[in-house]
Amino acid sequence: MKYPTPPTVIPLDNILPDEPLLMMGAGPVPIPPKVAMANSLIINHLGDTMNAVIEQVKTMGRYVFQTNSPHVMGVAGPASAAMEMAIANLVEPGTRVLSICNGLFSRRLAEMADRVGGDVTRLDAPDKRAISAEDVEKALKTGRFQILTVVQGETSNTVWNRDLVEICRLGKQYGCLNIVDAVCTLSTMPMEMDEWMVDAIITGGQKGLSSIPGVSLIAFSEEAFARIEARNSPMAHWCLDARLAHQFWHNHSYHYTAPVSGILALHEALRLIGDETLPGRFRRHAQCSKALQNGVEAMGLKLLIAEDSRLNSVVGIELPEVISADQVRHIMSQVHKVEISGAFGLPIVRIGQMGEQSRAPNLFRTLHALGSAMRAAGGKVDMPGGMAELERSLASEVRG
Amino acid sequence: MKYPTPPTVIPLDNILPDEPLLMMGAGPVPIPPKVAMANSLIINHLGDTMNAVIEQVKTMGRYVFQTNSPHVMGVAGPASAAMEMAIANLVEPGTRVLSICNGLFSRRLAEMADRVGGDVTRLDAPDKRAISAEDVEKALKTGRFQILTVVQGETSNTVWNRDLVEICRLGKQYGCLNIVDAVCTLSTMPMEMDEWMVDAIITGGQKGLSSIPGVSLIAFSEEAFARIEARNSPMAHWCLDARLAHQFWHNHSYHYTAPVSGILALHEALRLIGDETLPGRFRRHAQCSKALQNGVEAMGLKLLIAEDSRLNSVVGIELPEVISADQVRHIMSQVHKVEISGAFGLPIVRIGQMGEQSRAPNLFRTLHALGSAMRAAGGKVDMPGGMAELERSLASEVRG
Repeated sequence: MKYPTPPTVIPLDNILPDEPLLMMGAGPVPIPPKVAMANSLIINHLGDTMNAVIEQVKTMGRYVFQTNSPHVMGVAGPASAAMEMAIANLVEPGTRVLSICNGLFSRRLAEMADRVGGDVTRLDAPDKRAISAEDVEKALKTGRFQILTVVQGETSNTVWNRDLVEICRLGKQYGCLNIVDAVCTLSTMPMEMDEWMVDAIITGGQKGLSSIPGVSLIAFSEEAFARIEARNSPMAHWCLDARLAHQFWHNHSYHYTAPVSGILALHEALRLIGDETLPGRFRRHAQCSKALQNGVEAMGLKLLIAEDSRLNSVVGIELPEVISADQVRHIMSQVHKVEISGAFGLPIVRIGQMGEQSRAPNLFRTLHALGSAMRAAGGKVDMPGGMAELERSLASEVRG
Repeated sequence: MKYPTPPTVIPLDNILPDEPLLMMGAGPVPIPPKVAMANSLIINHLGDTMNAVIEQVKTMGRYVFQTNSPHVMGVAGPASAAMEMAIANLVEPGTRVLSICNGLFSRRLAEMADRVGGDVTRLDAPDKRAISAEDVEKALKTGRFQILTVVQGETSNTVWNRDLVEICRLGKQYGCLNIVDAVCTLSTMPMEMDEWMVDAIITGGQKGLSSIPGVSLIAFSEEAFARIEARNSPMAHWCLDARLAHQFWHNHSYHYTAPVSGILALHEALRLIGDETLPGRFRRHAQCSKALQNGVEAMGLKLLIAEDSRLNSVVGIELPEVISADQVRHIMSQVHKVEISGAFGLPIVRIGQMGEQSRAPNLFRTLHALGSAMRAAGGKVDMPGGMAELERSLASEVRG
């Protein structure tokens, strides 16, 4: 045969660093060994074994979402695909949507709603601030909205919409189904789908759950799913059609070949959350993130967001104007083998506090690396002060 | 806090069989240890390391597709998502589509084209037969089609469209862009994207490539991508928008968080294909599949599809009326730890010959398990005759 020579390839071992980097950015996050092990397995996508796994994933999904709705499903795709699934199934051409916009990811929900023909109104939150329930109510009064979209935490600028419960209550009061993006927050802070009247809740694997990116989780309320089953307008989407996905997730039958290894990984990630319990997990995240924030401030750096709007799951840190975020991140990864995130145009770095990231050894290593890199880049930081405060905060009782 | 007790969960170890099943169905297929290892790793989805991996995946993707087009991309989703990506980007409302239908998967392409507003004509192949170039030309003459969709092999009924090269030539002659589904065939038999004038080519991870399900591969010709870049009509799809996906796959920038572990797995799977070379891989698949088919027939069983339309990548075997496919499959998995597929309503079983499935030890184990299960289910089979023929065929020279 006339086939050309295959391309020369650098072995993966030579591309990957000899010492794996500690993943302390805005996701993906480190995964526990049991999750990694599960992700290396391949089993049949249909049949009794897979069905047993699926049933448990749904049951554990209900626990992390705090819902009794049966309509919990995995999604073969990134968290953005789960976002798109919520939107594409609930927004029909002409559906009036109110999208609360805090930044990149909340705007992504609005864009997805535009694409499926929604009549979308964007409500911008003030810069670096959570949206207030008052502002949401004012907007809700201006149009008969049918869908409200909101993020619990905005990963891009590290804002936490603390009024979420009241916002969802208002959404229902004004006739909306509430779509809530809990991509970076789920299992790091309370989220009670039923109690809070959330109709579609979304998360990714690679954030709080500490599973892999590429297999996500979604739940619809009974009311939302009834709306989906009753819809008459055709859907452009096939893979993300919730009625088709139901075939696999609830009827033990075929939709497409499910990402079996990723679902096994998700199973293990959810099981570990149950072992720790949600309250235990929330405590750990609050304590670790607060300790990190305190340590950063004690080191002499400023946090991007004021405390009353500040997210714990991802921490945004301002850099002095003379210091380049890219340079700091480069030194941290090259010298200290710690990887953190930049931002989308903002002069900040972001440190994740999701799942396995929120462990004391990771915090010491990260804060030390951040301070050292700042110093190497010409910044002034009080490193002993920072490390002392981190230790002090970790040892103190969590408030709230 | 008032959170209820987490659900009781059966550990994964107690759900998975103690002895892993040999996956000999229509996919997923067994993955090599290097692929499993890569799939257990998490790295950052952006940055130099990931960029180096992505560049190699594209280069190796061009080799397996046999194309010089730069527009090779991974897809975070099942092969169906790659199918949907090809359709959703190339079919606009009113686009005239000719969909050649051999069974479930080729019809899926047509359904996806319906959903995005295509004006779709279905051309049904005769039952259990490949479509002929003559029939395709007749259909092409009846309407000014802009898109032609066709599967190289139809996984559901194991038909091989052997006239594919001529069909694609006709498609171009009559003004179409050719979308070819090579989901179950890629790397098991020749596919020369550029030479054959294919404009969009699709495959899944979990078939010939022997990677995981959930991360797929697609390539567009330069002509197809130019069409996509020039399109004016809005797209309902966000994750599968090829222009957005280009950001990550070609501009080293952000679209959504890529499925990093699955991409590392795909990298290793493609690297192993390069090591073996495509001609070597085609020979192995042809030899193994033919040997299996001969062994099955020598055992006294009938293959579903006549030789001139028969696919090698998935082998469909008729069962005597009195024997239940479910029972045979159950015995094979419980007693022999070999899993094969049923079919979608057809009284057949299907054995995969894709990637790692096409290895002599797997063939002996599978044929022995099939024969033993048939016998246990009350069927009459010549097991020594079957095993002898399998050995004989494996040892003989491959023709063609």
